[in-house]
Amino acid sequence: MKVGFVGLGRMGSAIAGRVLAAGHDLLVYNRTASKAADLEQAGARVAGSVEAVCEAREVVISMLADDAALEHVAYAPRGLVQSLPRGAVHLAMGTHGVQAVRRLDAAHREAGQFLIAAPVFGRPDAAAAGQLGIAAAGPAEQAHRCEPLFQAIGRRTFDAGTDPVGATAIKLANNFMIGCALESMGEAFSLVRKFGVAPAVLLDVLTNVSFSAPVFKIYGQIMVDESYDQVGFTANLALKDANLILAAADAARVPLACANVVRDRLLSAIAHGGGEKDWAVMAREQARSAGLD
Amino acid sequence: MKVGFVGLGRMGSAIAGRVLAAGHDLLVYNRTASKAADLEQAGARVAGSVEAVCEAREVVISMLADDAALEHVAYAPRGLVQSLPRGAVHLAMGTHGVQAVRRLDAAHREAGQFLIAAPVFGRPDAAAAGQLGIAAAGPAEQAHRCEPLFQAIGRRTFDAGTDPVGATAIKLANNFMIGCALESMGEAFSLVRKFGVAPAVLLDVLTNVSFSAPVFKIYGQIMVDESYDQVGFTANLALKDANLILAAADAARVPLACANVVRDRLLSAIAHGGGEKDWAVMAREQARSAGLD
Amino acid sequence: MKVGFVGLGRMGSAIAGRVLAAGHDLLVYNRTASKAADLEQAGARVAGSVEAVCEAREVVISMLADDAALEHVAYAPRGLVQSLPRGAVHLAMGTHGVQAVRRLDAAHREAGQFLIAAPVFGRPDAAAAGQLGIAAAGPAEQAHRCEPLFQAIGRRTFDAGTDPVGATAIKLANNFMIGCALESMGEAFSLVRKFGVAPAVLLDVLTNVSFSAPVFKIYGQIMVDESYDQVGFTANLALKDANLILAAADAARVPLACANVVRDRLLSAIAHGGGEKDWAVMAREQARSAGLD
Amino acid sequence: MKVGFVGLGRMGSAIAGRVLAAGHDLLVYNRTASKAADLEQAGARVAGSVEAVCEAREVVISMLADDAALEHVAYAPRGLVQSLPRGAVHLAMGTHGVQAVRRLDAAHREAGQFLIAAPVFGRPDAAAAGQLGIAAAGPAEQAHRCEPLFQAIGRRTFDAGTDPVGATAIKLANNFMIGCALESMGEAFSLVRKFGVAPAVLLDVLTNVSFSAPVFKIYGQIMVDESYDQVGFTANLALKDANLILAAADAARVPLACANVVRDRLLSAIAHGGGEKDWAVMAREQARSAGLD
Repeated sequence: MKVGFVGLGRMGSAIAGRVLAAGHDLLVYNRTASKAADLEQAGARVAGSVEAVCEAREVVISMLADDAALEHVAYAPRGLVQSLPRGAVHLAMGTHGVQAVRRLDAAHREAGQFLIAAPVFGRPDAAAAGQLGIAAAGPAEQAHRCEPLFQAIGRRTFDAGTDPVGATAIKLANNFMIGCALESMGEAFSLVRKFGVAPAVLLDVLTNVSFSAPVFKIYGQIMVDESYDQVGFTANLALKDANLILAAADAARVPLACANVVRDRLLSAIAHGGGEKDWAVMAREQARSAGLD
Repeated sequence: MKVGFVGLGRMGSAIAGRVLAAGHDLLVYNRTASKAADLEQAGARVAGSVEAVCEAREVVISMLADDAALEHVAYAPRGLVQSLPRGAVHLAMGTHGVQAVRRLDAAHREAGQFLIAAPVFGRPDAAAAGQLGIAAAGPAEQAHRCEPLFQAIGRRTFDAGTDPVGATAIKLANNFMIGCALESMGEAFSLVRKFGVAPAVLLDVLTNVSFSAPVFKIYGQIMVDESYDQVGFTANLALKDANLILAAADAARVPLACANVVRDRLLSAIAHGGGEKDWAVMAREQARSAGLD
Repeated sequence: MKVGFVGLGRMGSAIAGRVLAAGHDLLVYNRTASKAADLEQAGARVAGSVEAVCEAREVVISMLADDAALEHVAYAPRGLVQSLPRGAVHLAMGTHGVQAVRRLDAAHREAGQFLIAAPVFGRPDAAAAGQLGIAAAGPAEQAHRCEPLFQAIGRRTFDAGTDPVGATAIKLANNFMIGCALESMGEAFSLVRKFGVAPAVLLDVLTNVSFSAPVFKIYGQIMVDESYDQVGFTANLALKDANLILAAADAARVPLACANVVRDRLLSAIAHGGGEKDWAVMAREQARSAGLD
Repeated sequence: MKVGFVGLGRMGSAIAGRVLAAGHDLLVYNRTASKAADLEQAGARVAGSVEAVCEAREVVISMLADDAALEHVAYAPRGLVQSLPRGAVHLAMGTHGVQAVRRLDAAHREAGQFLIAAPVFGRPDAAAAGQLGIAAAGPAEQAHRCEPLFQAIGRRTFDAGTDPVGATAIKLANNFMIGCALESMGEAFSLVRKFGVAPAVLLDVLTNVSFSAPVFKIYGQIMVDESYDQVGFTANLALKDANLILAAADAARVPLACANVVRDRLLSAIAHGGGEKDWAVMAREQARSAGLD
């Protein structure tokens, strides 16, 4: 397939690499051109603008950091909406807000294009290994056209329906639940510490019985080790996500009591200087609230 | 070993069966005598009173429904504290509050006996198969004496220290985290439903990626199927546990924001008639708060 | 009237003084006898026991610190329930839990006595000036009998119905709302501080416009002055009340989201050493959570 | 003074009427021109555009419904920022978000103009009577210039410092506290109802003792009467405000636990069809959560 790619951060580069390795005709663009060097060496062509990366493409994939970046790429003069060929697909794989996705869907439709939202689950190393999960939503026929790409990129694709915002909601719901997992672990660790139990013992119990899942194993260990400086995902970015989640809840009229708790814990953690630490630092903040400074 | 056993509910019977099958000399007592019939047939002797079940025992195991039952068995005239031989162990395997356990520990010490708190993780079928997890805490030498019993009963024992209350705290923390898992899943399901996504799709994503653990698989399916009448653990019992958790938090001066959310959700669910439904009914109540009645 | 009085703390002494001054035949009892000296000098007779203070009384008033004290006075051998004449009234003016009041009501009925719950609103100086508010509930005829006492004690009596627990609920609801007022002021002060506004300016606005009521004026000033060492009511006592409120909510199946926030703030404040400070110290704790240490 | 006025809703018209009555030279503009008729008859001149209403003005007052309206008036071509004379003051009296005010302050400074934020406290009838409270913030000299206007409009002006955002924070904090007052009253009413007490009795106690302030009297009565169709301020508008408050909290890194509860209650009330009812409908929603449907 003739594929364009915008957004070559760590995740984007890994995904683009999978697309290229699967034999597709890949044209890439990144604001900071140097990030395209490895892909170019591996056989991708490099475009000098968003407009150029759209040229004669069937699909353009975006993997952008936030709604502002997405909206700039989409709506700037000679942006995606102006430049994508009629009938082509914008495959948006970043984590975005429901309102940004709704607006974008409308803009692409009006321009005779299609939006498939397909946020991913997993970290850059999983991406490089083709092991991402993908939740895809958008017009069925177009989603079908993207399947070769999904197979190149991920290990499993989840069908999230025909409205792109559905995939967005799933991604936000997943991230929200991770936040709740961190908060509840933080609360649980503080509770047992006050009764003389080492957090490592509780973690051992949890991950051997009901909570034998990656989110508890990985983040629980960070909390036990207090290794908040080994950052996978910062508290600042987590707050950005929490705000997207609460904005979705607002739009949908859903009270999310636990999401509020997560947002507040992040605000406190950031107020105490933890914004650039791993967001598991929520546990340290929870402990502080219990006098376990 | 010479073992006594008090409390032959579903869980107690399954555990007692394991102890008997492992070749120990088992004397059992239950307020409702009929519940001892199967064990008697399998070779256990049946005592007519708490006093009798303590006779010449090295260890008496209790598996009782709540603190009131435990305190009645322990402190009534001719109860456990009066009747257990000096030097013997009371192995308390039920889920109890930190204050009840602290008082009981003091009472046994004063009477020259030992308390080992050893709450279990798993359901009756896991108990029957010897697959429980056990968090054990109490004096090291006495905990060591109980190891043959732990091996008969469970698949793994976690060392929760020398203060019995530590094992209690671990059990409460685990149950608390399950409650948070239910609440956050309920919130997540409501969120995606409002964006047109079937809960089953979100559950599939969650349990394939970050949340591939029993608690999410089992309870998530109940929520997706709305099969709240197939009761594993009632909302009323869950509220009892939530109150034990918050009482522990109170004693320890730990604010547990998510535990409050869980308790409130249970109160609402019970206020709407769901007290005897499975506690996953929290999800239905969360949906109601979002207007998804 | 022939009146007995149990519980001569600061509040009790002030109320008893009003009863005596109104010309009633007053017999008083306090565990620490020395506290009765002033009243004795003013003309009250002093009884040596709960039993003695009930002798030939039409009404015995109790003003006790908590449920434990109330239950000791009520149920101990030769306590109120055993000693109060048939047909006499126990007028309970302390702040108690709904369950303690329900049990007590049943016990008095069984003994042919009456319980009127009549918690008061105001501080000891208001009590000494006969300016308390009183919420009274219990059998109508008996409540009517107590009216001369209410007129001696307070400036206004609110009819809370014929079930004593109704007056209890009103008192708890009022204290709960004071806690919410403190919490929301604390949050509001932190918010404006972060935008460069002195808390005193916000307090001036609040108390001049929508919040021109004692609770905001008095506690707001304590927060502005950070004069938490001038203690009206300690955080530890406030936590005791918060627990009574949440126990009532539990019994009634009412989720109280703000009450949880208040309880958690008190737990944090106490965990940070503020247990014996005025409970307005909640504002300092809220500020801490925002990094305003 | 030569005064311009933009935004002649109910509140704006009342304020503009006060300015005119105080003898100032008043030029008014409203998108819907008909709303200017009464003021024109009373002697104001009517401008046909934002540009025209700025002509030769010392001060232009805006009273606009939300940030979107403010930003349109300010930044549209020939808007306030382009049209206001150098050295003139934009006196913004609406309720706006901290980020909108910060951007506007910067824009006016860059254009050699001044922003004074001066949100008001009170309803249209208080405005017509010159009885509003005003919290004013901005450069001291310019705030001083506005004093004749403040005297015409309000009964008291609160000095909120030299940064306009300070006045914004005060207004948001006040509205936040009103929301908390409504939520806590709703919770309190549900609690006492469950114990057989009529809400009117609790309201009587509250407003006679600690909570003798307008916010409790007015909104409490609406709750007691369940007269949610007599709308002072809709739940939808209250949600808009709640989001401004939480956005301010986000910007300032202040966790606001009670504000979250308020927002969630509003979301539930709106999800159940109460968006256009008076926001005291929060109490009905709280009751629903307790099974008091």
